[in-house]
Amino acid sequence: MANTPMDVKELPASGALVLAVDMPGVVPADVKVQVEEGNVLTITGERKRPADDGDGVKYLRMERRMGKFMRKFPLPESADIDGVRAEYKDGVLTVTVNKKPPPEPKKPRVVEVKVAGAGEPKGK
Amino acid sequence: MANTPMDVKELPASGALVLAVDMPGVVPADVKVQVEEGNVLTITGERKRPADDGDGVKYLRMERRMGKFMRKFPLPESADIDGVRAEYKDGVLTVTVNKKPPPEPKKPRVVEVKVAGAGEPKGK
Repeated sequence: MANTPMDVKELPASGALVLAVDMPGVVPADVKVQVEEGNVLTITGERKRPADDGDGVKYLRMERRMGKFMRKFPLPESADIDGVRAEYKDGVLTVTVNKKPPPEPKKPRVVEVKVAGAGEPKGK
Repeated sequence: MANTPMDVKELPASGALVLAVDMPGVVPADVKVQVEEGNVLTITGERKRPADDGDGVKYLRMERRMGKFMRKFPLPESADIDGVRAEYKDGVLTVTVNKKPPPEPKKPRVVEVKVAGAGEPKGK
């Protein structure tokens, strides 16, 4: 399951990124989503054989790959790292990364102009 | 998604067959499980892109295959066709096929032995 397939789409209105990663039969507790050095979204996990496979279970076909998997996706500078959300449903992990609001336009700093000499005591 | 992976195992105690088929992100109503001519278990379904993909959605990666899929598995004569159960959970369809109980051992048919001549009137 090393390279489980992933879609990444960008929503037109908000510019949010939505990642969908196939991971059927994975226990959500076995999935980790993190943003690493350099703004790289990293999804790691592991799919395990059912624990109730006791002795004597005979596999007639065994096509589903088990084991660890990892997917990475570099996020843009504009990504709101603190607001990343991840949800697991029907075997698909959906990770939503919103765009940070654009920085406020810098207000021009108003420098008060002091009128030199005004209000000073006249003569010494 | 034409050849989505499948495991088939046989449970030691009951001899039941358990099939596990990966189908992440599939709507259960889009899956059909049936036993066809010749005792062939057939699983068909379709995975569709999310309906909320409106205009302007831009895919940066598109690795997850959509569309129809089909898997078949020939069942043994001993399979209890009427008791096949299917359950969809966490993107995996699990189909359980129990074994029919062995046919009752045939009771030997007791043929009554009539004693010829007994009880017949003596002489004509």
